[in-house]
Amino acid sequence: MFILLTNDDGIRAPGLVALYRELVKAGHEVEVVAPETVQSATGHGVTTAGPLLTSRVKVEDAFEGIAVDGRPADCVKLAINQLLNGRLPDLVVSGMNSGTNVGINVIYSGTVAAAIEAGFLGLPAIAVSLYLKSDIETDYARAAIYAVKTIDLILNAGLKPGQIATMNIPALHPHEEPAGVRIVRQCTRPWIDTYERRQDPKGHDYFWNTSIFRLGQTEEDTDVAALRDRYITVTPLQYDLTDHPLVERWRKENWRL
Amino acid sequence: MFILLTNDDGIRAPGLVALYRELVKAGHEVEVVAPETVQSATGHGVTTAGPLLTSRVKVEDAFEGIAVDGRPADCVKLAINQLLNGRLPDLVVSGMNSGTNVGINVIYSGTVAAAIEAGFLGLPAIAVSLYLKSDIETDYARAAIYAVKTIDLILNAGLKPGQIATMNIPALHPHEEPAGVRIVRQCTRPWIDTYERRQDPKGHDYFWNTSIFRLGQTEEDTDVAALRDRYITVTPLQYDLTDHPLVERWRKENWRL
Repeated sequence: MFILLTNDDGIRAPGLVALYRELVKAGHEVEVVAPETVQSATGHGVTTAGPLLTSRVKVEDAFEGIAVDGRPADCVKLAINQLLNGRLPDLVVSGMNSGTNVGINVIYSGTVAAAIEAGFLGLPAIAVSLYLKSDIETDYARAAIYAVKTIDLILNAGLKPGQIATMNIPALHPHEEPAGVRIVRQCTRPWIDTYERRQDPKGHDYFWNTSIFRLGQTEEDTDVAALRDRYITVTPLQYDLTDHPLVERWRKENWRL
Repeated sequence: MFILLTNDDGIRAPGLVALYRELVKAGHEVEVVAPETVQSATGHGVTTAGPLLTSRVKVEDAFEGIAVDGRPADCVKLAINQLLNGRLPDLVVSGMNSGTNVGINVIYSGTVAAAIEAGFLGLPAIAVSLYLKSDIETDYARAAIYAVKTIDLILNAGLKPGQIATMNIPALHPHEEPAGVRIVRQCTRPWIDTYERRQDPKGHDYFWNTSIFRLGQTEEDTDVAALRDRYITVTPLQYDLTDHPLVERWRKENWRL
Protein backbone atom coordinates (compact mmCIF):
# COMPACT_ATOMS: atom_id res chain seq x y z
CA MET A 1 0.00 0.00 0.00
CA PHE A 2 0.99 3.61 -0.60
CA ILE A 3 0.42 5.41 2.72
CA LEU A 4 0.49 9.12 3.52
CA LEU A 5 1.68 9.51 7.12
CA THR A 6 1.06 12.70 9.08
CA ASN A 7 0.49 13.77 12.68
CA ASP A 8 0.03 16.78 14.93
CA ASP A 9 3.09 16.38 17.17
CA GLY A 10 5.47 17.45 14.40
CA ILE A 11 7.54 15.56 11.84
CA ARG A 12 10.29 14.64 14.35
CA ALA A 13 7.93 13.21 16.99
CA PRO A 14 8.89 9.76 18.33
CA GLY A 15 5.37 8.39 17.76
CA LEU A 16 5.48 9.22 14.06
CA VAL A 17 8.97 7.79 13.64
CA ALA A 18 7.99 4.54 15.37
CA LEU A 19 4.86 4.20 13.25
CA TYR A 20 6.85 4.93 10.08
CA ARG A 21 9.35 2.17 10.87
CA GLU A 22 6.64 -0.38 11.59
CA LEU A 23 4.57 0.46 8.49
CA VAL A 24 7.66 0.07 6.29
CA LYS A 25 8.52 -3.20 8.04
CA ALA A 26 5.02 -4.42 7.09
CA GLY A 27 5.88 -3.80 3.44
CA HIS A 28 4.12 -0.48 2.86
CA GLU A 29 5.46 2.48 0.91
CA VAL A 30 5.18 5.51 3.22
CA GLU A 31 5.44 9.21 2.39
CA VAL A 32 5.60 11.61 5.36
CA VAL A 33 4.06 15.10 5.18
CA ALA A 34 3.74 16.49 8.69
CA PRO A 35 3.78 19.77 10.59
CA GLU A 36 7.15 21.45 11.14
CA THR A 37 6.24 22.15 14.78
CA VAL A 38 4.05 20.68 17.50
CA GLN A 39 0.36 21.30 16.73
CA SER A 40 -1.30 19.47 19.63
CA ALA A 41 -4.89 20.38 20.38
CA THR A 42 -5.06 22.75 17.42
CA GLY A 43 -8.18 20.92 16.35
CA HIS A 44 -9.35 21.10 12.79
CA GLY A 45 -7.81 24.43 11.83
CA VAL A 46 -6.70 25.34 8.34
CA THR A 47 -4.35 28.02 7.05
CA THR A 48 -5.82 30.35 4.45
CA ALA A 49 -4.43 33.79 5.32
CA GLY A 50 -0.71 33.15 5.02
CA PRO A 51 1.60 31.06 2.85
CA LEU A 52 2.45 27.47 3.78
CA LEU A 53 6.22 27.02 3.82
CA THR A 54 7.61 23.57 3.17
CA SER A 55 10.99 21.96 3.59
CA ARG A 56 12.52 18.53 3.08
CA VAL A 57 13.58 17.12 6.44
CA LYS A 58 15.70 14.06 7.26
CA VAL A 59 14.52 12.50 10.52
CA GLU A 60 17.04 10.28 12.33
CA ASP A 61 18.05 7.47 9.99
CA ALA A 62 14.38 6.69 9.43
CA PHE A 63 13.10 8.79 6.54
CA GLU A 64 13.18 11.99 4.53
CA GLY A 65 9.81 13.72 4.55
CA ILE A 66 8.21 17.09 3.91
CA ALA A 67 7.66 19.46 6.83
CA VAL A 68 4.84 22.02 6.47
CA ASP A 69 4.66 25.05 8.75
CA GLY A 70 0.92 24.53 9.10
CA ARG A 71 -1.67 22.44 10.84
CA PRO A 72 -2.41 18.73 10.45
CA ALA A 73 -5.34 19.37 8.08
CA ASP A 74 -3.13 21.66 5.97
CA CYS A 75 -0.63 18.81 5.59
CA VAL A 76 -3.30 16.46 4.25
CA LYS A 77 -4.81 19.03 1.88
CA LEU A 78 -1.44 20.15 0.58
CA ALA A 79 -0.07 16.60 0.23
CA ILE A 80 -3.03 15.42 -1.79
CA ASN A 81 -3.35 18.61 -3.82
CA GLN A 82 0.34 19.26 -4.53
CA LEU A 83 3.10 17.46 -2.70
CA LEU A 84 2.38 13.90 -3.83
CA ASN A 85 2.39 15.08 -7.46
CA GLY A 86 -1.09 13.76 -8.16
CA ARG A 87 -0.50 10.27 -6.77
CA LEU A 88 -3.36 9.46 -4.37
CA PRO A 89 -2.50 7.45 -1.25
CA ASP A 90 -4.33 4.15 -0.66
CA LEU A 91 -4.56 5.11 3.02
CA VAL A 92 -3.85 8.13 5.20
CA VAL A 93 -2.48 7.42 8.68
CA SER A 94 -2.24 10.14 11.32
CA GLY A 95 -0.11 9.62 14.41
CA MET A 96 0.99 8.00 16.54
CA ASN A 97 -0.03 10.79 18.89
CA SER A 98 1.71 11.19 22.25
CA GLY A 99 -1.41 11.04 24.37
CA THR A 100 -4.82 9.50 24.05
CA ASN A 101 -7.72 10.90 22.03
CA VAL A 102 -10.86 9.45 23.56
CA GLY A 103 -14.15 10.95 24.65
CA ILE A 104 -14.66 14.57 23.86
CA ASN A 105 -10.95 14.91 23.08
CA VAL A 106 -11.77 13.33 19.70
CA ILE A 107 -13.15 16.77 18.80
CA TYR A 108 -10.08 18.69 20.03
CA SER A 109 -7.56 16.41 18.42
CA GLY A 110 -5.36 17.54 15.55
CA THR A 111 -4.41 13.89 15.01
CA VAL A 112 -8.05 13.00 14.41
CA ALA A 113 -8.60 16.20 12.38
CA ALA A 114 -5.99 15.08 9.85
CA ALA A 115 -7.81 11.76 9.41
CA ILE A 116 -11.19 13.49 9.09
CA GLU A 117 -9.74 15.84 6.47
CA ALA A 118 -8.57 12.82 4.48
CA GLY A 119 -12.04 11.31 4.85
CA PHE A 120 -13.62 14.54 3.50
CA LEU A 121 -11.38 14.25 0.49
CA GLY A 122 -12.60 10.73 -0.18
CA LEU A 123 -9.68 8.70 1.17
CA PRO A 124 -9.72 5.96 3.83
CA ALA A 125 -7.99 7.23 6.94
CA ILE A 126 -6.89 6.00 10.37
CA ALA A 127 -5.82 8.08 13.37
CA VAL A 128 -3.56 6.47 16.00
CA SER A 129 -3.03 7.73 19.55
CA LEU A 130 -1.05 6.32 22.46
CA TYR A 131 -2.19 6.57 26.07
CA LEU A 132 0.64 7.97 28.21
CA LYS A 133 0.67 7.21 31.93
CA SER A 134 3.12 8.86 34.28
CA ASP A 135 3.95 5.58 36.07
CA ILE A 136 4.62 3.63 32.86
CA GLU A 137 7.64 4.23 30.62
CA THR A 138 6.46 5.01 27.09
CA ASP A 139 7.58 2.41 24.53
CA TYR A 140 6.71 3.88 21.13
CA ALA A 141 8.26 1.02 19.16
CA ARG A 142 6.18 -1.59 20.96
CA ALA A 143 3.00 0.50 20.68
CA ALA A 144 3.60 0.88 16.93
CA ILE A 145 3.62 -2.92 16.53
CA TYR A 146 0.12 -3.08 18.06
CA ALA A 147 -0.97 -0.09 15.99
CA VAL A 148 0.03 -1.70 12.69
CA LYS A 149 -1.61 -5.01 13.70
CA THR A 150 -4.81 -3.08 14.42
CA ILE A 151 -4.55 -1.15 11.13
CA ASP A 152 -4.46 -4.57 9.43
CA LEU A 153 -7.60 -5.62 11.32
CA ILE A 154 -9.40 -2.46 10.22
CA LEU A 155 -8.33 -2.89 6.61
CA ASN A 156 -9.39 -6.54 6.66
CA ALA A 157 -12.82 -5.52 7.97
CA GLY A 158 -12.94 -3.10 5.05
CA LEU A 159 -12.30 0.64 5.19
CA LYS A 160 -13.89 2.23 2.15
CA PRO A 161 -12.87 5.52 0.51
CA GLY A 162 -13.99 8.33 2.81
CA GLN A 163 -14.30 6.08 5.86
CA ILE A 164 -12.36 7.04 8.97
CA ALA A 165 -11.33 5.15 12.08
CA THR A 166 -9.51 6.29 15.18
CA MET A 167 -7.63 3.97 17.52
CA ASN A 168 -6.01 4.27 20.93
CA ILE A 169 -3.22 2.04 22.22
CA PRO A 170 -3.25 1.43 25.99
CA ALA A 171 -0.35 2.23 28.30
CA LEU A 172 1.41 -1.06 29.06
CA HIS A 173 3.96 -2.14 31.61
CA PRO A 174 6.72 -4.22 29.93
CA HIS A 175 5.17 -7.50 31.17
CA GLU A 176 1.61 -6.54 30.14
CA GLU A 177 -0.25 -7.30 26.91
CA PRO A 178 -3.31 -5.40 25.64
CA ALA A 179 -6.53 -7.03 26.88
CA GLY A 180 -7.64 -7.25 23.22
CA VAL A 181 -9.26 -5.01 20.61
CA ARG A 182 -12.66 -3.41 21.18
CA ILE A 183 -14.87 -1.51 18.74
CA VAL A 184 -16.41 1.24 20.79
CA ARG A 185 -18.30 4.51 20.49
CA GLN A 186 -16.97 7.92 21.51
CA CYS A 187 -17.83 8.79 25.10
CA THR A 188 -19.66 12.14 25.12
CA ARG A 189 -19.53 12.84 28.83
CA PRO A 190 -18.10 16.27 29.61
CA TRP A 191 -14.53 16.65 30.68
CA ILE A 192 -14.55 19.27 33.41
CA ASP A 193 -11.47 21.48 33.36
CA THR A 194 -10.02 23.17 36.37
CA TYR A 195 -7.97 26.35 36.34
CA GLU A 196 -5.70 28.01 38.87
CA ARG A 197 -5.88 31.81 39.08
CA ARG A 198 -2.62 33.77 39.49
CA GLN A 199 -1.62 37.39 39.17
CA ASP A 200 1.21 38.80 37.07
CA PRO A 201 3.58 41.40 38.60
CA LYS A 202 1.27 44.17 37.34
CA GLY A 203 -1.79 42.66 39.01
CA HIS A 204 -3.51 41.17 35.95
CA ASP A 205 -5.17 37.78 36.33
CA TYR A 206 -3.87 34.83 34.39
CA PHE A 207 -4.83 31.16 34.56
CA TRP A 208 -3.18 27.78 34.36
CA ASN A 209 -5.16 24.76 33.26
CA THR A 210 -4.68 22.34 36.17
CA SER A 211 -6.87 19.49 34.89
CA ILE A 212 -5.44 16.04 35.39
CA PHE A 213 -6.40 13.62 32.66
CA ARG A 214 -7.95 10.48 34.08
CA LEU A 215 -10.02 7.84 32.33
CA GLY A 216 -13.04 8.00 34.56
CA GLN A 217 -16.42 6.38 35.00
CA THR A 218 -18.46 6.00 31.84
CA GLU A 219 -20.76 3.57 30.05
CA GLU A 220 -19.16 0.21 29.25
CA ASP A 221 -19.35 0.43 25.44
CA THR A 222 -17.25 3.60 25.13
CA ASP A 223 -13.66 4.32 24.14
CA VAL A 224 -12.91 5.71 27.62
CA ALA A 225 -14.05 2.52 29.39
CA ALA A 226 -12.24 0.18 27.00
CA LEU A 227 -8.94 2.07 27.11
CA ARG A 228 -9.11 2.26 30.91
CA ASP A 229 -9.53 -1.55 30.87
CA ARG A 230 -6.35 -1.91 28.76
CA TYR A 231 -8.04 -2.66 25.43
CA ILE A 232 -6.91 -1.24 22.11
CA THR A 233 -9.91 0.87 21.10
CA VAL A 234 -11.20 1.33 17.55
CA THR A 235 -13.92 3.89 16.79
CA PRO A 236 -15.21 4.48 13.27
CA LEU A 237 -15.88 8.21 12.77
CA GLN A 238 -18.16 10.43 10.69
CA TYR A 239 -18.22 14.21 10.31
CA ASP A 240 -21.87 15.17 10.06
CA LEU A 241 -22.48 17.26 13.18
CA THR A 242 -26.20 17.69 12.44
CA ASP A 243 -28.54 16.72 15.26
CA HIS A 244 -30.99 15.01 12.87
CA PRO A 245 -33.78 14.23 15.36
CA LEU A 246 -33.86 17.91 16.35
CA VAL A 247 -33.98 18.93 12.67
CA GLU A 248 -37.09 16.76 12.29
CA ARG A 249 -38.72 18.17 15.41
CA TRP A 250 -38.02 21.82 14.59
CA ARG A 251 -39.20 21.40 10.99
CA LYS A 252 -42.67 20.47 12.25
CA GLU A 253 -43.02 23.91 13.82
CA ASN A 254 -43.88 27.11 12.04
CA TRP A 255 -40.83 29.36 12.12
CA ARG A 256 -41.52 32.88 10.87
CA LEU A 257 -39.18 35.86 11.12
CA MET B 1 -31.60 36.22 30.09
CA PHE B 2 -27.97 36.21 31.19
CA ILE B 3 -25.90 35.56 28.06
CA LEU B 4 -22.20 34.77 27.68
CA LEU B 5 -21.04 36.21 24.34
CA THR B 6 -17.85 35.01 22.68
CA ASN B 7 -16.46 34.59 19.16
CA ASP B 8 -13.34 33.64 17.22
CA ASP B 9 -12.69 36.92 15.38
CA GLY B 10 -11.50 38.66 18.56
CA ILE B 11 -13.19 40.83 21.16
CA ARG B 12 -13.07 43.98 18.99
CA ALA B 13 -14.64 42.35 15.90
CA PRO B 14 -17.55 44.28 14.35
CA GLY B 15 -19.78 41.19 14.26
CA LEU B 16 -19.46 40.69 18.01
CA VAL B 17 -20.07 44.36 18.77
CA ALA B 18 -23.20 44.42 16.57
CA LEU B 19 -24.55 41.28 18.18
CA TYR B 20 -23.82 42.65 21.66
CA ARG B 21 -25.77 45.84 20.94
CA GLU B 22 -28.77 43.95 19.56
CA LEU B 23 -28.88 41.42 22.43
CA VAL B 24 -28.82 44.24 24.98
CA LYS B 25 -31.53 46.08 23.03
CA ALA B 26 -33.66 42.93 23.32
CA GLY B 27 -33.36 43.22 27.11
CA HIS B 28 -30.67 40.61 27.80
CA GLU B 29 -27.77 40.94 30.22
CA VAL B 30 -24.62 40.16 28.25
CA GLU B 31 -21.11 39.38 29.50
CA VAL B 32 -18.35 39.25 26.85
CA VAL B 33 -15.38 36.88 27.20
CA ALA B 34 -13.63 36.59 23.84
CA PRO B 35 -10.19 36.02 22.32
CA GLU B 36 -7.71 38.89 22.44
CA THR B 37 -6.74 38.24 18.81
CA VAL B 38 -8.29 36.80 15.66
CA GLN B 39 -8.68 33.01 15.96
CA SER B 40 -10.43 32.18 12.69
CA ALA B 41 -10.29 28.58 11.54
CA THR B 42 -8.48 27.49 14.69
CA GLY B 43 -11.13 24.84 15.13
CA HIS B 44 -11.70 23.27 18.48
CA GLY B 45 -8.27 23.84 20.00
CA VAL B 46 -7.61 24.30 23.68
CA THR B 47 -4.65 25.73 25.57
CA THR B 48 -3.14 23.44 28.17
CA ALA B 49 0.62 23.99 27.88
CA GLY B 50 0.84 27.71 28.63
CA PRO B 51 -0.93 30.21 30.85
CA LEU B 52 -4.05 32.04 29.67
CA LEU B 53 -3.58 35.79 30.10
CA THR B 54 -6.68 37.93 30.57
CA SER B 55 -7.35 41.64 30.46
CA ARG B 56 -10.37 43.92 30.82
CA VAL B 57 -11.01 45.66 27.51
CA LYS B 58 -13.33 48.55 26.66
CA VAL B 59 -14.65 48.17 23.11
CA GLU B 60 -15.95 51.34 21.45
CA ASP B 61 -18.75 52.77 23.58
CA ALA B 62 -20.44 49.37 23.53
CA PHE B 63 -19.12 47.30 26.43
CA GLU B 64 -16.30 46.35 28.75
CA GLY B 65 -15.44 42.68 28.45
CA ILE B 66 -12.65 40.22 29.23
CA ALA B 67 -10.10 39.41 26.53
CA VAL B 68 -8.35 36.03 26.77
CA ASP B 69 -5.16 35.32 24.81
CA GLY B 70 -6.50 31.90 23.91
CA ARG B 71 -8.88 30.13 21.59
CA PRO B 72 -12.67 30.30 21.49
CA ALA B 73 -13.09 27.08 23.48
CA ASP B 74 -10.66 28.40 26.12
CA CYS B 75 -12.87 31.48 26.54
CA VAL B 76 -15.94 29.36 27.23
CA LYS B 77 -14.15 27.00 29.63
CA LEU B 78 -12.46 29.83 31.50
CA ALA B 79 -15.59 31.99 31.65
CA ILE B 80 -17.71 29.22 33.09
CA ASN B 81 -15.01 27.89 35.39
CA GLN B 82 -13.60 31.19 36.67
CA LEU B 83 -14.42 34.51 35.06
CA LEU B 84 -18.19 34.58 35.68
CA ASN B 85 -17.54 33.89 39.39
CA GLY B 86 -19.74 30.82 39.46
CA ARG B 87 -22.77 32.42 37.81
CA LEU B 88 -23.89 30.14 34.96
CA PRO B 89 -25.18 31.81 31.78
CA ASP B 90 -28.71 30.94 30.59
CA LEU B 91 -27.34 30.88 27.05
CA VAL B 92 -23.95 31.02 25.32
CA VAL B 93 -23.83 32.91 22.00
CA SER B 94 -20.78 32.74 19.73
CA GLY B 95 -20.35 35.25 16.94
CA MET B 96 -21.34 36.96 14.81
CA ASN B 97 -18.57 35.53 12.67
CA SER B 98 -17.30 37.45 9.65
CA GLY B 99 -17.90 34.72 7.10
CA THR B 100 -20.23 31.79 6.78
CA ASN B 101 -19.85 28.43 8.51
CA VAL B 102 -21.76 25.94 6.42
CA GLY B 103 -20.96 22.50 5.04
CA ILE B 104 -17.68 21.03 6.13
CA ASN B 105 -16.59 24.43 7.47
CA VAL B 106 -18.79 23.65 10.50
CA ILE B 107 -15.93 21.37 11.58
CA TYR B 108 -13.18 23.97 11.00
CA SER B 109 -15.02 26.80 12.69
CA GLY B 110 -13.81 28.34 15.93
CA THR B 111 -17.19 30.10 16.21
CA VAL B 112 -18.97 26.76 16.20
CA ALA B 113 -16.31 25.21 18.46
CA ALA B 114 -17.13 27.73 21.20
CA ALA B 115 -20.82 26.76 21.01
CA ILE B 116 -19.98 23.04 21.04
CA GLU B 117 -17.74 23.56 24.08
CA ALA B 118 -20.66 25.23 25.88
CA GLY B 119 -22.89 22.32 24.87
CA PHE B 120 -20.33 19.85 26.32
CA LEU B 121 -20.49 21.74 29.55
CA GLY B 122 -24.27 21.38 29.68
CA LEU B 123 -25.34 24.85 28.54
CA PRO B 124 -27.62 25.78 25.63
CA ALA B 125 -25.55 27.48 22.93
CA ILE B 126 -26.00 29.20 19.58
CA ALA B 127 -23.32 30.05 17.01
CA VAL B 128 -23.97 32.89 14.56
CA SER B 129 -22.13 33.47 11.27
CA LEU B 130 -22.62 36.04 8.53
CA TYR B 131 -22.14 35.27 4.85
CA LEU B 132 -19.83 37.87 3.28
CA LYS B 133 -20.04 38.51 -0.45
CA SER B 134 -17.53 40.69 -2.26
CA ASP B 135 -20.23 42.51 -4.26
CA ILE B 136 -22.41 43.30 -1.21
CA GLU B 137 -21.43 45.80 1.47
CA THR B 138 -21.46 44.10 4.88
CA ASP B 139 -24.06 45.54 7.26
CA TYR B 140 -23.33 43.97 10.66
CA ALA B 141 -25.99 45.98 12.49
CA ARG B 142 -28.74 44.82 10.15
CA ALA B 143 -27.51 41.21 10.20
CA ALA B 144 -27.52 41.30 14.03
CA ILE B 145 -31.24 42.20 14.01
CA TYR B 146 -32.00 39.06 12.00
CA ALA B 147 -29.67 37.03 14.21
CA VAL B 148 -31.45 38.04 17.42
CA LYS B 149 -34.87 37.40 15.85
CA THR B 150 -33.67 33.93 14.90
CA ILE B 151 -32.21 33.34 18.37
CA ASP B 152 -35.71 34.09 19.70
CA LEU B 153 -37.22 31.55 17.29
CA ILE B 154 -34.74 28.90 18.46
CA LEU B 155 -35.40 29.66 22.13
CA ASN B 156 -39.16 29.55 21.53
CA ALA B 157 -38.81 26.15 19.86
CA GLY B 158 -36.92 25.10 22.99
CA LEU B 159 -33.16 24.80 23.34
CA LYS B 160 -32.42 22.52 26.28
CA PRO B 161 -29.24 22.51 28.40
CA GLY B 162 -26.50 20.97 26.28
CA GLN B 163 -28.30 21.56 23.00
CA ILE B 164 -26.48 23.52 20.32
CA ALA B 165 -27.62 25.33 17.19
CA THR B 166 -25.66 27.12 14.51
CA MET B 167 -27.13 29.78 12.22
CA ASN B 168 -25.98 31.63 9.13
CA ILE B 169 -27.28 35.01 8.00
CA PRO B 170 -27.35 35.55 4.22
CA ALA B 171 -25.57 38.40 2.43
CA LEU B 172 -28.22 40.98 1.58
CA HIS B 173 -28.29 44.00 -0.70
CA PRO B 174 -29.88 46.97 1.10
CA HIS B 175 -33.21 46.45 -0.68
CA GLU B 176 -33.29 42.68 -0.05
CA GLU B 177 -34.91 40.72 2.79
CA PRO B 178 -33.97 37.16 3.81
CA ALA B 179 -36.15 34.62 1.96
CA GLY B 180 -37.13 33.21 5.39
CA VAL B 181 -35.69 30.80 7.97
CA ARG B 182 -34.91 27.18 7.12
CA ILE B 183 -33.93 24.32 9.42
CA VAL B 184 -31.35 22.37 7.48
CA ARG B 185 -28.71 19.70 7.87
CA GLN B 186 -24.98 20.22 7.42
CA CYS B 187 -23.83 19.57 3.85
CA THR B 188 -21.03 16.97 3.95
CA ARG B 189 -19.80 17.33 0.39
CA PRO B 190 -16.07 17.93 0.21
CA TRP B 191 -14.73 21.41 -0.35
CA ILE B 192 -11.82 21.01 -2.75
CA ASP B 193 -8.98 23.42 -2.02
CA THR B 194 -6.58 24.70 -4.60
CA TYR B 195 -3.03 25.86 -3.94
CA GLU B 196 -0.54 27.88 -5.94
CA ARG B 197 3.08 26.78 -5.76
CA ARG B 198 5.79 29.46 -5.51
CA GLN B 199 9.49 29.48 -4.69
CA ASP B 200 11.21 31.59 -2.07
CA PRO B 201 14.49 33.37 -3.00
CA LYS B 202 16.43 30.31 -1.78
CA GLY B 203 14.47 27.94 -4.01
CA HIS B 204 12.20 26.34 -1.38
CA ASP B 205 8.61 25.66 -2.35
CA TYR B 206 5.81 27.43 -0.54
CA PHE B 207 2.11 27.46 -1.24
CA TRP B 208 -0.81 29.88 -1.16
CA ASN B 209 -4.32 28.62 -0.69
CA THR B 210 -6.13 30.01 -3.74
CA SER B 211 -9.56 28.49 -3.09
CA ILE B 212 -12.49 30.80 -3.77
CA PHE B 213 -15.42 30.17 -1.48
CA ARG B 214 -18.60 29.64 -3.44
CA LEU B 215 -21.88 28.12 -2.28
CA GLY B 216 -22.13 25.41 -4.89
CA GLN B 217 -24.42 22.61 -5.96
CA THR B 218 -25.72 20.40 -3.17
CA GLU B 219 -28.85 18.60 -1.99
CA GLU B 220 -31.80 20.90 -1.35
CA ASP B 221 -32.17 20.25 2.41
CA THR B 222 -28.67 21.43 3.34
CA ASP B 223 -27.28 24.61 4.89
CA VAL B 224 -25.28 25.35 1.73
CA ALA B 225 -28.36 25.27 -0.52
CA ALA B 226 -30.53 27.32 1.83
CA LEU B 227 -27.92 30.03 2.38
CA ARG B 228 -27.25 30.23 -1.36
CA ASP B 229 -31.01 30.79 -1.80
CA ARG B 230 -30.90 33.71 0.70
CA TYR B 231 -32.50 31.90 3.66
CA ILE B 232 -31.34 32.27 7.23
CA THR B 233 -30.15 28.75 8.04
CA VAL B 234 -30.50 27.01 11.40
CA THR B 235 -28.78 23.67 12.05
CA PRO B 236 -29.00 21.91 15.42
CA LEU B 237 -25.66 20.27 16.22
CA GLN B 238 -24.36 17.29 18.19
CA TYR B 239 -20.78 16.24 18.95
CA ASP B 240 -20.75 12.46 18.79
CA LEU B 241 -18.44 11.69 15.86
CA THR B 242 -19.01 7.92 16.13
CA ASP B 243 -20.10 6.22 12.91
CA HIS B 244 -22.65 4.04 14.75
CA PRO B 245 -23.73 1.82 11.81
CA LEU B 246 -20.07 0.93 11.22
CA VAL B 247 -19.63 0.16 14.95
CA GLU B 248 -22.50 -2.33 14.64
CA ARG B 249 -21.09 -3.91 11.50
CA TRP B 250 -17.53 -4.25 12.80
CA ARG B 251 -18.72 -5.67 16.12
CA LYS B 252 -20.24 -8.64 14.31
CA GLU B 253 -16.79 -9.66 13.09
CA ASN B 254 -14.19 -11.48 15.08
CA TRP B 255 -11.27 -9.12 15.66
CA ARG B 256 -8.22 -10.78 17.18
CA LEU B 257 -4.78 -9.25 17.56
